[in-house]
Amino acid sequence: MVNDLITHINKFVRLTEAESEEIIAAVKTVSVKKKGFLLQPGETCRANYFVGKGCMRLYFINRNGQEQITMFGIENWWITDYSSLETGKPSSYYLQAIEDSEVISLDKKALDDLLVKVPKMERYFRLILQKAFTATMRRLEYFRDQTDEERYRHFVSLFPGFVQRIPQYMLASYLGFTPQFLSKIRGKKSGSPHKSE
Amino acid sequence: MVNDLITHINKFVRLTEAESEEIIAAVKTVSVKKKGFLLQPGETCRANYFVGKGCMRLYFINRNGQEQITMFGIENWWITDYSSLETGKPSSYYLQAIEDSEVISLDKKALDDLLVKVPKMERYFRLILQKAFTATMRRLEYFRDQTDEERYRHFVSLFPGFVQRIPQYMLASYLGFTPQFLSKIRGKKSGSPHKSE
Repeated sequence: MVNDLITHINKFVRLTEAESEEIIAAVKTVSVKKKGFLLQPGETCRANYFVGKGCMRLYFINRNGQEQITMFGIENWWITDYSSLETGKPSSYYLQAIEDSEVISLDKKALDDLLVKVPKMERYFRLILQKAFTATMRRLEYFRDQTDEERYRHFVSLFPGFVQRIPQYMLASYLGFTPQFLSKIRGKKSGSPHKSE
Repeated sequence: MVNDLITHINKFVRLTEAESEEIIAAVKTVSVKKKGFLLQPGETCRANYFVGKGCMRLYFINRNGQEQITMFGIENWWITDYSSLETGKPSSYYLQAIEDSEVISLDKKALDDLLVKVPKMERYFRLILQKAFTATMRRLEYFRDQTDEERYRHFVSLFPGFVQRIPQYMLASYLGFTPQFLSKIRGKKSGSPHKSE
């Protein structure tokens, strides 16, 4: 599974054999059972996690007492609470496995050391974060500029396989509507992806 | 003004004299009159911009024909369309000055060269993007978990001076409600910042 990480990094920067070995020495593999947690509110986030197998979700409990999903992490995605990881302050998020998962954990101290030993990792994470930032900006625009149904159909068109993997109520929580609404639009024929008003 | 940039970078990494000089040689200063554009839809975004003085906004025209503001850039903020800058594909955004502004332009080619000559800049931009990413994620959460009035009051508490600087309709466009609604809540006494249901 560590090989998947090396392959992923090599898509963004070109690692030497020695650099790959530094990375392999810096990470550890962690198994998380379905519903298991890597982080809970009040704890400080200690690592960045690369999903090798399975699926994770980052969520918090909003003031209506509902789970609000901020981020999913599937194979080849990094997932963490960057704010808590960087500042050392307690997190307000849960990081939980949706399926039995295998993740590669890069602990804060190992990460800091690795960025010094293998400076290319700065570039790698810069490019990853640039993608994450623009994707989140786009997601924010969609929240304002698409109807709920359009947002659902757009998401399905981007990640058709993923939609089949996760419980319906989690998809609703991520996209910002009720499970009942999701059932209703799933019940319809595919319809026009751009139907509005 | 280039000194403001060097000071800003030094908050995140420690530059040598030689590195500072490389950065100074790589950038250029650009004056933009109020309402002037650095980018318009259909053009490829050619640079990342650091605002030295004034205020910029990144926006697009949504399908209702309205300006939707994605990002503001005031003093000491970087602003660009990272997606177009990275991929070379045409942008769908306008990057416009709200006030007479002075910006430092780091053109794509100069940026790419600089990242090789001064690898610390990879770290600097990684940290900047990490902050931008977490701030955008938080903004997305607020869009879903706060009422319009709460979102307004929260924004004012975070950026009190900024709110005075920009036209009311632009603030409404950024926060996602109508100028009429903004007038209404501005007319009220300060009220409770957490009033709900």
